[in-house]
Amino acid sequence: MFKCNEKRLEEKIKTFSTFGATGRGGITRLSLSPAALEARTEFCNRMKKMGAHIVTDDMANIYATIPGDEKLPWIMTGSHLDSVIQGGNYDGVLGVLTAMEAVETITTEKIPHRHPITVIVWTNEEGARFDPAMMSSGVITGKFEKEKMLQSKDTKGTAFKEALEASGYKGDIKNRMDPKNVKALFELHIEQGPVLDAEKKDIGIVEGVCGMVNYEFSFKGQADHAGTTPMSYRKDALFAASNAIIWLHNELDKLDSKLVYTTGRITCSPNIHTIIPDDVKFTLDARHQDPKVISQVVDIINKIPKEISKCEVSYEELWGRNTVVFNKNNVEAVAKAVDDLGYSSKRMYSGPGHDAQYAADVVPTSMIFVPSIDGHSHCEIEYTPVENCLKGANVLLNAILNIDAQ
Amino acid sequence: MFKCNEKRLEEKIKTFSTFGATGRGGITRLSLSPAALEARTEFCNRMKKMGAHIVTDDMANIYATIPGDEKLPWIMTGSHLDSVIQGGNYDGVLGVLTAMEAVETITTEKIPHRHPITVIVWTNEEGARFDPAMMSSGVITGKFEKEKMLQSKDTKGTAFKEALEASGYKGDIKNRMDPKNVKALFELHIEQGPVLDAEKKDIGIVEGVCGMVNYEFSFKGQADHAGTTPMSYRKDALFAASNAIIWLHNELDKLDSKLVYTTGRITCSPNIHTIIPDDVKFTLDARHQDPKVISQVVDIINKIPKEISKCEVSYEELWGRNTVVFNKNNVEAVAKAVDDLGYSSKRMYSGPGHDAQYAADVVPTSMIFVPSIDGHSHCEIEYTPVENCLKGANVLLNAILNIDAQ
Repeated sequence: MFKCNEKRLEEKIKTFSTFGATGRGGITRLSLSPAALEARTEFCNRMKKMGAHIVTDDMANIYATIPGDEKLPWIMTGSHLDSVIQGGNYDGVLGVLTAMEAVETITTEKIPHRHPITVIVWTNEEGARFDPAMMSSGVITGKFEKEKMLQSKDTKGTAFKEALEASGYKGDIKNRMDPKNVKALFELHIEQGPVLDAEKKDIGIVEGVCGMVNYEFSFKGQADHAGTTPMSYRKDALFAASNAIIWLHNELDKLDSKLVYTTGRITCSPNIHTIIPDDVKFTLDARHQDPKVISQVVDIINKIPKEISKCEVSYEELWGRNTVVFNKNNVEAVAKAVDDLGYSSKRMYSGPGHDAQYAADVVPTSMIFVPSIDGHSHCEIEYTPVENCLKGANVLLNAILNIDAQ
Repeated sequence: MFKCNEKRLEEKIKTFSTFGATGRGGITRLSLSPAALEARTEFCNRMKKMGAHIVTDDMANIYATIPGDEKLPWIMTGSHLDSVIQGGNYDGVLGVLTAMEAVETITTEKIPHRHPITVIVWTNEEGARFDPAMMSSGVITGKFEKEKMLQSKDTKGTAFKEALEASGYKGDIKNRMDPKNVKALFELHIEQGPVLDAEKKDIGIVEGVCGMVNYEFSFKGQADHAGTTPMSYRKDALFAASNAIIWLHNELDKLDSKLVYTTGRITCSPNIHTIIPDDVKFTLDARHQDPKVISQVVDIINKIPKEISKCEVSYEELWGRNTVVFNKNNVEAVAKAVDDLGYSSKRMYSGPGHDAQYAADVVPTSMIFVPSIDGHSHCEIEYTPVENCLKGANVLLNAILNIDAQ
């Protein structure tokens, strides 16, 4: 078994944590911002030193490739360097840093490998500056229309197109990942959830990305004065919505225990303490790896009473995504690496979306998760100890070599 | 029995509906705004024509007094001319217009009366431009510190003090209502609730203003990713808040059926559909005429579990007010007028606050309600048919004359 270098990986994490540092332990490194461009420069400089050939495509995705011993398709790995506002030092960037560390181990220790190995940096994964998330993996895998994406604007009115052209990273469309020329793609990521940490597992062997549905429920009541309207006359939309939330919990809790669902956003109108609410809406996000369970969720949604507490109930689907099942050969290459290294692990599905889920449609893909302490992510206290990061890098390195041997 | 003139009252309502008209049937006539000043000018001109002597006090409250046959204390009546944003043509202004109509009936028909009769226009009842509501009745009855009130600012940064000085209505502090010189005060108002309309009653004989408490409840959970956090790990503050709303309904519904309570405002943080809410707050407004019932409400609030759905529960009282019981002699003067006129009526307590509730602390006071169609108020569709307005004016006129005869 080959292993990466903990000190070297730690230095990478520390250095990249300075690009966009907030001064409170986290980073704000919005896509194509000056901080993100600093991180890209550092990435390119380091990859060049390892002997990588670097190209970018028309969406500014970066491909840094070290040659293999034979003329064969690429084995790819990587993630993203952009963050949310006041994000942490691990989400995305750790997938790039462990990829760099795996390649640095291969080049430093002159580990023989038949396939070229390409480290990829995807542009605008978070969607925190330019909506939507996973924009550039989405464009090159045919999920999003490029022209629409170029018009996406940040809060200052700058279009993605302008930021792209100003970045210096806009390359040729011909440089896009060619699915026929990709043997496998791995993305390492923090779990962004509490399971691995709570269950004291070193590695998540990610078998796919959960399917999801996202609905918005609306409750129409009547806005009347809090002080004058007898209780029996009321149509209180917040009371109706509260009842609906409880009802949904009761019904959804009967389904498979791996189902996760969230009522994360609520709006209330007029939202004045002395007026009975007449218009309340809340969202329901539900995720499960098995499409049958998602169907059961939709069945329950369709059974919600049309009237609750005298308020009119309606709902609409905001969006959904099908379950993505990762490539078995990739998953087993990861599992073998975990076993060979003697690490503890758990097979799991990803709840959040990742660039890998779009890539999975066109190239053999899977993911490797490392624990997030207390499950925190998208916040400054997001943390994964360097030992865990190293274990992730080791699994990534050996998964690549497992695929390389095939 | 003397009666007011329907056509004359209707003309008043129509004319005053033009000051600040939104063009959609309602008005925006914020306190001391140009629209409110137009209404004040019209009021003063008309009262002068009736032979009234007009003074204003240091809070720009207007007192328009017609002399009585004897040197006796005033009988006062009136309300306010300001409105909320996109308010209706009846809230407040109808109490001024019916007062004007009663005085016009007295002067036109030369109805003998021993006491001087004063129509009062209170400044800034709504608090919609300058917080708080009932500001000027509050100041002259010792509820609010005048210096603080003068500093109250509208959303454009204009202080009440500046608006007051620019208005031309700022008068001498010596002109404030002198409680020793007031025999009685009546305020006619729309009910702002659905009861009179639903029960087909002409008049509400208002015996007091309900006591109230207003609390805010807080629920502290943990913000985690919607897609990665198993249900059993969650601390969902919105789920906790929903459970608390249902719990409060269940408990409060056991109390007296005249209790009204409202959870009108809810805030949720971070309020993103893919994140479990970690901080949810909602308000509870509860009102009842009997302080014992309000105590029972507070007892229930104090019994709310400290933890709901693994979230920490806390609460604080935002404000409260004691029940105001109106002067019995006033109330019976109104009841006698209603009986003599043969109108249907209901004895009731006011849920909302009115200037009369502050006046009640220093002078014999009561209120007369007329129906609000469908209970609407503080909105453009607020409506009371002119026949109902006239009945209110007739009750007001005869209640004044009943007091005058004492």
